[in-house]
Amino acid sequence: MTGDGDALAQACAERMWADDLASQRLGMRVLDVGAGRAMLAMVVRPDMVNGHGNAHGGLVFAVADTAFAFACNSRNVRSVAYGCAITYLAPVSAGDELVAAAVERSLVGRTGTYDVTVTVGGTAGRMVVAEFRGTSRTVGGPLLDVG
Amino acid sequence: MTGDGDALAQACAERMWADDLASQRLGMRVLDVGAGRAMLAMVVRPDMVNGHGNAHGGLVFAVADTAFAFACNSRNVRSVAYGCAITYLAPVSAGDELVAAAVERSLVGRTGTYDVTVTVGGTAGRMVVAEFRGTSRTVGGPLLDVG
Amino acid sequence: MTGDGDALAQACAERMWADDLASQRLGMRVLDVGAGRAMLAMVVRPDMVNGHGNAHGGLVFAVADTAFAFACNSRNVRSVAYGCAITYLAPVSAGDELVAAAVERSLVGRTGTYDVTVTVGGTAGRMVVAEFRGTSRTVGGPLLDVG
Amino acid sequence: MTGDGDALAQACAERMWADDLASQRLGMRVLDVGAGRAMLAMVVRPDMVNGHGNAHGGLVFAVADTAFAFACNSRNVRSVAYGCAITYLAPVSAGDELVAAAVERSLVGRTGTYDVTVTVGGTAGRMVVAEFRGTSRTVGGPLLDVG
Repeated sequence: MTGDGDALAQACAERMWADDLASQRLGMRVLDVGAGRAMLAMVVRPDMVNGHGNAHGGLVFAVADTAFAFACNSRNVRSVAYGCAITYLAPVSAGDELVAAAVERSLVGRTGTYDVTVTVGGTAGRMVVAEFRGTSRTVGGPLLDVG
Repeated sequence: MTGDGDALAQACAERMWADDLASQRLGMRVLDVGAGRAMLAMVVRPDMVNGHGNAHGGLVFAVADTAFAFACNSRNVRSVAYGCAITYLAPVSAGDELVAAAVERSLVGRTGTYDVTVTVGGTAGRMVVAEFRGTSRTVGGPLLDVG
Repeated sequence: MTGDGDALAQACAERMWADDLASQRLGMRVLDVGAGRAMLAMVVRPDMVNGHGNAHGGLVFAVADTAFAFACNSRNVRSVAYGCAITYLAPVSAGDELVAAAVERSLVGRTGTYDVTVTVGGTAGRMVVAEFRGTSRTVGGPLLDVG
Repeated sequence: MTGDGDALAQACAERMWADDLASQRLGMRVLDVGAGRAMLAMVVRPDMVNGHGNAHGGLVFAVADTAFAFACNSRNVRSVAYGCAITYLAPVSAGDELVAAAVERSLVGRTGTYDVTVTVGGTAGRMVVAEFRGTSRTVGGPLLDVG
């Protein structure tokens, strides 16, 4: 389903993406954005591993966090992360492509709750490697000037 | 207090650091490591900002996560992150130097709990910008061969 | 949709409910159980308030936790809570009826992730008062002997 | 160390305790309160078990939550829980006495972070059974009218 909400979400995402140098430098790509949702991808580069030789947990978190940020700002109300939690379910290797899919669970007053599932592809379909939940708070003002 | 536990922790940290390309590329520095603790620093570079112009939350998380990883592997028992939670308390700007200080809260069976406080410097002393908690699980085997 | 999975889930729930004196004493009721899901209700009694006169957060948590427990044990594999997180979105008063609806988000290896939304009724429909996420681990063995 | 801050904390705790029917009915006892800290105890009654025959996780949470509430209201600024997370480290049985010790980790703007460790006694000393972290927000106004 695509509607006006999705068009606004895409405009918000373009505005955020232009300034989001961190996500750009990490090689993320925006796959889809809509009202209350966002999906991003990031290939784990050889220089993204930690001391155990797996993808650094902070970078698995980062792609989920960007998906969360785009989802919680998709309604053109400036919102920031208040808290996030992640559970790591399987190790990720260099070369794997992470996909983080964020969906809005609820929006109550100034507080939004977003669930983000992070997967990698495999021969038997996509496998969940991390579950993330983000809590956002609106901070006032629009992202975009819209008529 | 520095003892044999701290010397072992430093050897574990050196071993992990050598392979931790992600933390190296993000410009982190190890300030201190000991039995059950670790402190790292990272300057927020201009290319580490998000779509609101602040330090990307994923990279604030990353420095806390590396401090957690070094603390939970400081006893020469291979340990991995199971889950982490972060609360963001103040925005961080490009140019700020983040310091993440991890301390072990408890170690019960295979599960460790680590508290990491992230601060930035300021004219009135250090200010807390994020509180992080990590839960680790031992996965068997030592990091180092020690006599 | 009701299938064999749901019949098994209901049998597991009956088995757990019989022993779950805590949930019984708190006045919970099981509204619905199925494969990977559970819904419970609890009226906040006058003796369930905290020092601010609102429903005690621990008891709002408790109804979500029981819904989570029934959902993660719904496949006849004994599972226990590993960690839970709750965000409180609105105060709850004595007399309100809480409904906690748990759904399975993913099940990877021994780890399950369950989202539980807690609502109260109102003139304008149900309102979300808390979002809960539970992480479970299977501990081996069935709940029920089934043929 | 006992000072004016601790006397004020004790007065705040007495005020909250009088209204906290939930904690009273669960049989909690206040062991100690001071500026930014609180310690409570609760014996797990036979009617506090869950469907696996262990102490119900919601009630283990509840004693930690009350300790958190008393700690975050100890400075005579009305504060409410925003979010809480708990990790369960060992099962608890009917008859065990839980002790929950809350300490303030930081207080930044309106947000406080509190760590609560829950232990039970044993022949080899106290054992940690759960780690809890609470995030509070001040809501304006004092608990007590003080000169």
